[in-house]
Amino acid sequence: MNFGEDPVNLIEETIAAIGPLNEAAMRDARDHQSRLTKPPGSLGVLEEVPVRLAGLAGQCPPPLPEPAAVAVFAADHGVHARGVSPWPQEVTAQMVANFLAGGAVVNAFAAQVGAGVTVVDVGIATDLDAAPGLLRRKIAPGTADMTRGPAMTADEARRAVEAGIRVARELVTKGAPAEAGGVGGPPSNSAGGARCLITGDMGIANTTASAALIAAFTGLPAERVTGRGTGIDDATHAHKVEVVREALTRHGLLPGHGKEPMEVLAAVGGLEHAAIAGFVLGAAALRVPVVLDGVIAGAGALVAAALAPDALGGCVAGHRSAEPGHTAAIEALGLRPLVDLELRLGEGTGALLALPLVQGAVRVLHEVATFDSAGVSEKDAGRP
Amino acid sequence: MNFGEDPVNLIEETIAAIGPLNEAAMRDARDHQSRLTKPPGSLGVLEEVPVRLAGLAGQCPPPLPEPAAVAVFAADHGVHARGVSPWPQEVTAQMVANFLAGGAVVNAFAAQVGAGVTVVDVGIATDLDAAPGLLRRKIAPGTADMTRGPAMTADEARRAVEAGIRVARELVTKGAPAEAGGVGGPPSNSAGGARCLITGDMGIANTTASAALIAAFTGLPAERVTGRGTGIDDATHAHKVEVVREALTRHGLLPGHGKEPMEVLAAVGGLEHAAIAGFVLGAAALRVPVVLDGVIAGAGALVAAALAPDALGGCVAGHRSAEPGHTAAIEALGLRPLVDLELRLGEGTGALLALPLVQGAVRVLHEVATFDSAGVSEKDAGRP
Repeated sequence: MNFGEDPVNLIEETIAAIGPLNEAAMRDARDHQSRLTKPPGSLGVLEEVPVRLAGLAGQCPPPLPEPAAVAVFAADHGVHARGVSPWPQEVTAQMVANFLAGGAVVNAFAAQVGAGVTVVDVGIATDLDAAPGLLRRKIAPGTADMTRGPAMTADEARRAVEAGIRVARELVTKGAPAEAGGVGGPPSNSAGGARCLITGDMGIANTTASAALIAAFTGLPAERVTGRGTGIDDATHAHKVEVVREALTRHGLLPGHGKEPMEVLAAVGGLEHAAIAGFVLGAAALRVPVVLDGVIAGAGALVAAALAPDALGGCVAGHRSAEPGHTAAIEALGLRPLVDLELRLGEGTGALLALPLVQGAVRVLHEVATFDSAGVSEKDAGRP
Repeated sequence: MNFGEDPVNLIEETIAAIGPLNEAAMRDARDHQSRLTKPPGSLGVLEEVPVRLAGLAGQCPPPLPEPAAVAVFAADHGVHARGVSPWPQEVTAQMVANFLAGGAVVNAFAAQVGAGVTVVDVGIATDLDAAPGLLRRKIAPGTADMTRGPAMTADEARRAVEAGIRVARELVTKGAPAEAGGVGGPPSNSAGGARCLITGDMGIANTTASAALIAAFTGLPAERVTGRGTGIDDATHAHKVEVVREALTRHGLLPGHGKEPMEVLAAVGGLEHAAIAGFVLGAAALRVPVVLDGVIAGAGALVAAALAPDALGGCVAGHRSAEPGHTAAIEALGLRPLVDLELRLGEGTGALLALPLVQGAVRVLHEVATFDSAGVSEKDAGRP
């Protein structure tokens, strides 16, 4: 892929650059893992991670996935007007200010695991001043209400996906972009580019749009995929399910709808979902792994997978959130989450907790001795 | 507690120094957490961790649990002679050499999360030369076969518990002891003492002794708590269950036995189980948190809890191993594991993966802004 000027058809060219995992490198990784000084299979679910990352990199062992960078895609949602969240819409911008000041949980977790934080405004309702750590890539001041019409125009959806692709390219090729000083440690302050990307998100009412996207892509009914977000009572939850059902019906997104992924995205998605889809596509084209956060990332990854199934090869489900739609999404994606602690915060927090597990699993292939090299007897040694 | 010379009755004095969690500090932690810029409860299972650690420290926020030190207690088991493992007994000593050379998974994971590794020989069958990172505290060259008599004498069991207490005290008060140079980074190479202890273990056949201990302390039958260890076939597994049952019957440890914890430990435990029990007691007396690894740690923690129930207050279950006895142990202990990835390696690997989660959860109380301080609107703001 060309790292110079953006091509005219950025989405199509990005998708064209995405290929399958390298089978030979995966075989090498499995072979090497079987010779390491540990019982076969004893790292459980973690054994598959470095195998897939070897396939992504096309080499064994794969590069250590560090430095890591979390991109927090922030946007507002027109469906907020329908009363689906107890939080006022201005909290999106207020929390972004909090991220930029280093005061949110995403900052604390990023500092703990040594990841850099970049906040990307792809659609906050209010305008933000320039600030270190902020990329101003606003496509629109929030989406329209998906129950009254499409959330985005086709052009907006496309430009939001492109914005996500560009953020992935910038973080990988240059580290934190110059206009974003970065907050919370490496790699924002390092010269090198990120070797692991992490999805984050912020947007009041974004679990409503996530539920609609997940229902549209999995065919599951609204009540199966609509959760309580950051915490709502029974009455608000019942209303939220009804709002999702209304949007799906209005846009003809009931099971068997057969619509194109970009059309589904524009109808009921958020600008951050579109950007996250692009971020996943952009990373896949560069063959850099992505640790997905919760339900917003899961919905965005469904869009990416619908556009380019191979884009999932380098994706790791960082955690399973408390949202029922997230479980539906990762099951549809065929991913198994690494952390499962009933988190429902977003921001990238669950994925950041998973980062040391991903890094540790890859480090095993780099640093652990083989039975031969360490002079350790193998299982059943000396038995007939 | 006196940090000078060991008292004559080290176990009793250690137990006497263990108290309950400080309720006022826990209340402060819950109150503070409720004011942070995140939806209430949105960190799920992780919210309880800093609350308990505040109770342990008697202050809010509790100190960050770093630097962290993993102690890998290594010992051999007489019951190995009964053919319960496909691995030859010399693998215990060979793997210890591998730990000391930095070539095992515990070393890779410790390096990833910045923990120091200290290996403690409390009962390896062969003698080891002095080496950086090794504490030679051998009580006996392995246990006796528990199906033919007690695994340990009462005196051996006692001295192994004392050895574990001393290791906890040394790591907390001095960092890695002088005789152990430490391998794998901080805190072994730092002057300061550890502020978080991590259990590790190595000993071929130690899942058999773990199963017997867990059955004796929980009252569950052998077949419910005996697993496949590092990997055995059906026939060996059936034989292993029978061996555990035989040991329980021989020592009168069937449900309702009413025996003292130290008697149970001596009858069917391992020297590393005894040392881990002491390690947990020693940490609790110093009010330093312990992240428990898998089934061997679970069995050791059952011994510690039987001796001093309050010792569990500062224990975090790092992970849930694939061993059925481990689930039984942590349920009996009332702990919820943080990582659940079907690991069955031991060495401290599962606990090390959980360390950044524990540290991140505590860091939230130190670094995250409150709604007031960050100027973020609260839920239902402006609603009637």
